[in-house]
Amino acid sequence: MSILVSKRVITLCLLTGISFIFSARAADGTGVSPDVVKQAEAFRDAAMEGSRAYEWLEALTTEVGPRLAGSEQEARAREWAISSLTQMGFGQVRVEPFTISGWERGAESARVISPYPQPLAVTALGGSIATPKGGITGELRGFASLDALETLPNGVLKGEIVYVGHAMRSTQDGSHYGYFGRLRREGASIAAAKGAGALLIRSIGTDSHRMPHTGSMTYAEGVAKIPAAALSNPDADQLERMLTRENAISVALDLQPRFVGEVPSGNVIADIVGAEFPDEIVVIGGHLDSWDLGTGAIDDGAGVAITLEAARMILASGLRPKRTIRLILWGAEEVGLLGGKAYVERHQNSLTKHVIGTESDFGAGRIWKITSRVNDDALPLVNLIARLVEPLGIAPGSNTVASSGPDLTPMVESGMPSFRFVQDGRDYFDLHHTPDDTLDKVSAENLDQSVAAYVVFTWLSANSDLNDWGWQAD
Amino acid sequence: MSILVSKRVITLCLLTGISFIFSARAADGTGVSPDVVKQAEAFRDAAMEGSRAYEWLEALTTEVGPRLAGSEQEARAREWAISSLTQMGFGQVRVEPFTISGWERGAESARVISPYPQPLAVTALGGSIATPKGGITGELRGFASLDALETLPNGVLKGEIVYVGHAMRSTQDGSHYGYFGRLRREGASIAAAKGAGALLIRSIGTDSHRMPHTGSMTYAEGVAKIPAAALSNPDADQLERMLTRENAISVALDLQPRFVGEVPSGNVIADIVGAEFPDEIVVIGGHLDSWDLGTGAIDDGAGVAITLEAARMILASGLRPKRTIRLILWGAEEVGLLGGKAYVERHQNSLTKHVIGTESDFGAGRIWKITSRVNDDALPLVNLIARLVEPLGIAPGSNTVASSGPDLTPMVESGMPSFRFVQDGRDYFDLHHTPDDTLDKVSAENLDQSVAAYVVFTWLSANSDLNDWGWQAD
Repeated sequence: MSILVSKRVITLCLLTGISFIFSARAADGTGVSPDVVKQAEAFRDAAMEGSRAYEWLEALTTEVGPRLAGSEQEARAREWAISSLTQMGFGQVRVEPFTISGWERGAESARVISPYPQPLAVTALGGSIATPKGGITGELRGFASLDALETLPNGVLKGEIVYVGHAMRSTQDGSHYGYFGRLRREGASIAAAKGAGALLIRSIGTDSHRMPHTGSMTYAEGVAKIPAAALSNPDADQLERMLTRENAISVALDLQPRFVGEVPSGNVIADIVGAEFPDEIVVIGGHLDSWDLGTGAIDDGAGVAITLEAARMILASGLRPKRTIRLILWGAEEVGLLGGKAYVERHQNSLTKHVIGTESDFGAGRIWKITSRVNDDALPLVNLIARLVEPLGIAPGSNTVASSGPDLTPMVESGMPSFRFVQDGRDYFDLHHTPDDTLDKVSAENLDQSVAAYVVFTWLSANSDLNDWGWQAD
Repeated sequence: MSILVSKRVITLCLLTGISFIFSARAADGTGVSPDVVKQAEAFRDAAMEGSRAYEWLEALTTEVGPRLAGSEQEARAREWAISSLTQMGFGQVRVEPFTISGWERGAESARVISPYPQPLAVTALGGSIATPKGGITGELRGFASLDALETLPNGVLKGEIVYVGHAMRSTQDGSHYGYFGRLRREGASIAAAKGAGALLIRSIGTDSHRMPHTGSMTYAEGVAKIPAAALSNPDADQLERMLTRENAISVALDLQPRFVGEVPSGNVIADIVGAEFPDEIVVIGGHLDSWDLGTGAIDDGAGVAITLEAARMILASGLRPKRTIRLILWGAEEVGLLGGKAYVERHQNSLTKHVIGTESDFGAGRIWKITSRVNDDALPLVNLIARLVEPLGIAPGSNTVASSGPDLTPMVESGMPSFRFVQDGRDYFDLHHTPDDTLDKVSAENLDQSVAAYVVFTWLSANSDLNDWGWQAD
């Protein structure tokens, strides 16, 4: 294809010096023609001049609000998405439904009973069992870290309420979350194995507001299930000050979440069908569900709005990509990547037709880096994408990172190549999974920068001759 | 006095050049001897090197926590203060008790019912009546400001739930609070006169967190009492976005505060008795009570800690002031300056013996300005204080400001001269009256700067020959 268009390329190069670089590289394996590059640049520049991403984010967070997986509000989010996408002119807008085991927050409170009686700001971790009605009371046992708790022999605790802190810090790439987040994900069963009656953790978050951070947890097989909740960071500080003053601190904890049986969720899907290779798919998207405490503006309304807008710009241009661009607004991400898992199950026979995909799910900060894990054949195309987004303040990173965002994890685990735009996450864990995840925290300009990057990725990926970025299917 | 000590002054001036300025001015009406100035400088410098104010603040906010006026926790704060002051060596530590009409927060919630069902973060204003059990539901009527609501003829509303916004901004001197705060203080009766069934206000606050700001309100005579609550600023934004989209918004509000009858409060008082004029008093202090939502670190644990530490430093020096230094830790400030009023009632016969006084009650920011309202005789002393605190980044301001802090308002209204250190309040209304008013927001260094200023004021005022700063008693 690059040879066929070489005459045109030369003409274009005479007109625009910059195109020469790309056209020359096109011949070097990007599989992308210069008019495709020019169009990607035009999309990028239009996005930077002002996209409509903030408008979609405002609509979703205002008209739907919180969108807990499996809830009536997540269902309304799907309706909102179907209605919005249809109105924008997408065809084939559909839901791929699945069901999940539902969990709902109930009343929740905690307080120090003695020696310093006062309330504590607390929230149940997602998936926690309830305390008995009326709550439980116990002596507090404090640990500086999960490591410190783990050094205890099993069974030595006698039903105490265990508090565990940690040293998570704000980082640009968010990498502390994976490490310190284990306390939230696995802490309850580790504490239970030691004999604890309940677990209170320092929020997996980097702010200093009275807003505990929720998030999913699971129970290990063969270990007693105990209730688990997060304290806000100021409340964790407060308990730690008390623990340095007194040995005997008595705490009450009352959590009344409910398991509500099988409830509906679903992935909302809209395609821009490819003109040449309609069965080859480039996936972008974000997840529609959020935690219940905020309105899910940064997690992940932003990702929904960014990728929806990138797809909408392409659709509105009237240009048809060679292969299919698939926008997936995932359901039930927060409670175990259930939308991603349902998708893989349903599309098992066509997984390798998903040439490449990426999800926006790290807030509303500016993208600063690209990571990928692709084969050598795809590197020229990754490099071309990187060159086109470099003016946005984005630089290429490692090609050894197997991640395209959480909902594509099941696909990546099946062998899919990876591509990811890494956003600046320094304030992400200030807001993540708290009531404070609301629209006022988002800058429209930052969203535009992300849209510009996603539209470049999407347009080039969907129009390159390259159709194997390095699938490692069995 | 300044003439009598002139020989010693000269000697000192030979030793320390800087003292010459002050001693020269002392002869010009400060009534302060150079050794008093030197000692004030020594106190100041010791405070800046590290005072114990943060330690007291940590103890109060950790060991007592929230301290709602009239509550068991406010009583514990008095016990804490008495025990702490006694342990520090203050004699004559006592409570001057009084009773107040008690009010307690209960369960509270609000939500949009239609067309965009979702919860709202809300808190009852202090002194609000309850809604009926189970709450009320009504159509929302939005107003951009109290002015906009006031233009409505009386009685035209039909039980709607009125929402009122405002344009309060962060300011260094906090002056927007007085103006925009009228919405909180008087809004309910203004809305009721129009026929409203309940009032929801945008929080009188400058942050963007899901933390509604409480604070006191009163009902006007002869107008129906309606429930009143504040929305967090992000929730107010959310309602305003809904109001631009839809005419008919249905909202539910459930507030269950209780009036609990006459309950105890009190002012905690400790004196450093004057060696020469024990019945002449210089007052410093802060208020012990706080709102119930936070631990009252900035409002007004900081003021308690700053002034307590200034007094403690003087006490610990073993030096006796000429007149009495009175530390008053006021009770029930938040619910109507009730401690200040009780004090004036009790000390009616000796009010004019209170030579000067000032309260620290504007958070934990750095002091940047002095305001006062004193007579010409006292200006040299005010100027001397100003010169001694200038190295702390503090400059003299207007001598027309009749304010010595809220709890001295009843005294100032009785004719007391005024002196105030104005703190930087740019973040004060981010935290004020919210759950977020906690210790982590306070810098020990900032407290030290305030202690340095207060100890200068206190030592000079208590040792100057000047005993009338401009009382305007009838």
